[in-house]
Amino acid sequence: MAESLVTERTKLKRIPDRGTHERETIYKILDEGFICHVGFVVDGQPFVIPTGYGRIDDHVYIHGSAASRMLRNLQKGIDVCVTVTLLDGLVLARSAFHHSMNYRSVVVLGKATLVEDPEEKLTALRAISENIVRGRWDDVREPNAQELKATSVLKLPIQEASAKIRTGGPKDEEEDYSLSVWAGVLPFRLTPGVPEVDPKMSVEAAVPAYIKNYSRTPRS
Amino acid sequence: MAESLVTERTKLKRIPDRGTHERETIYKILDEGFICHVGFVVDGQPFVIPTGYGRIDDHVYIHGSAASRMLRNLQKGIDVCVTVTLLDGLVLARSAFHHSMNYRSVVVLGKATLVEDPEEKLTALRAISENIVRGRWDDVREPNAQELKATSVLKLPIQEASAKIRTGGPKDEEEDYSLSVWAGVLPFRLTPGVPEVDPKMSVEAAVPAYIKNYSRTPRS
Repeated sequence: MAESLVTERTKLKRIPDRGTHERETIYKILDEGFICHVGFVVDGQPFVIPTGYGRIDDHVYIHGSAASRMLRNLQKGIDVCVTVTLLDGLVLARSAFHHSMNYRSVVVLGKATLVEDPEEKLTALRAISENIVRGRWDDVREPNAQELKATSVLKLPIQEASAKIRTGGPKDEEEDYSLSVWAGVLPFRLTPGVPEVDPKMSVEAAVPAYIKNYSRTPRS
Repeated sequence: MAESLVTERTKLKRIPDRGTHERETIYKILDEGFICHVGFVVDGQPFVIPTGYGRIDDHVYIHGSAASRMLRNLQKGIDVCVTVTLLDGLVLARSAFHHSMNYRSVVVLGKATLVEDPEEKLTALRAISENIVRGRWDDVREPNAQELKATSVLKLPIQEASAKIRTGGPKDEEEDYSLSVWAGVLPFRLTPGVPEVDPKMSVEAAVPAYIKNYSRTPRS
């Protein structure tokens, strides 16, 4: 399947050992993240907007207010780019030039289409919600007809896509290894803090386990 | 100054109470972040690429390999969108519909230009480095002529820009407050871990304080 994801536009141009078109690698990154940056063009001007997302099989789903500029434009079937970036660390080399970051990122290109089928729409909203907080959907009130109408859901096929990954320590010039400079990696993680209860809580309800033990472990 | 940042294209369309064009707010978000997502268009196709950045006064600077697709295209003076997103938390409401995220984001639109002046180029590289790891530049070997040649630096004026901010707890429908659902906020933070020394270290050098105590406090 991997080859099908490569096109002239997603072909990895530089440092190809950092890049891959493998579907499994791409899905793993998409499933660990939950915020993407969506790029689209209006009157020649690119816009990049952050938003939540979810994946079902070989599609990425995003949602938003039916009234938003992004959703109104995207549902016309224009070209989009969905990028997901996971930052893993800062790479501290002995020279300014060889500083880098460890990261995993995915770029998906294609045309997004509006999800019109009510059942698929609800399934997609659930997938987005579950990707952001697994276990939440079953605890809360589902969207009613009016809320569904106010929400647009778009899907983008994962057909043209690539991943880029950098791992490991700095790679310095041979002569720089003798410099008296600390070198290494400062790892980074997006970590959840202590849950803050809504002061408007009027009922007794414990913090759910999926909040208390929140982590971005890949789904099985 | 604030008004000058508003144009038809950056005018905040929805939920305007979440948005601002204030320069001070925009700078604060830009200075807390260090990864941006750059959007640009090639043959009608938008691309969104993550990269580090730095700010000097009213310009955002990015850099990269002179050979990269992004840098080669951007330096032609095409329209770009630079977006910085800081995720602050997940907002857990009683209904699926009212789930949200707390975040601060900035969108800057404009045309990037190549920094050709050698002195400005070095100053910009230092600003990018210092924005990512303050204190690092003075410790490491500066770029030599060959490295400078291999690096392109672009600048984008912060002229057309907006910020969007969401804070606080969930806002539910009146009738949903009686539901027996835990509601609140799960805060998020990008946190540094334990520094990992390069196994190739051949000299004695302690972990610098700016790594050991790394934090994204706004600069003064």
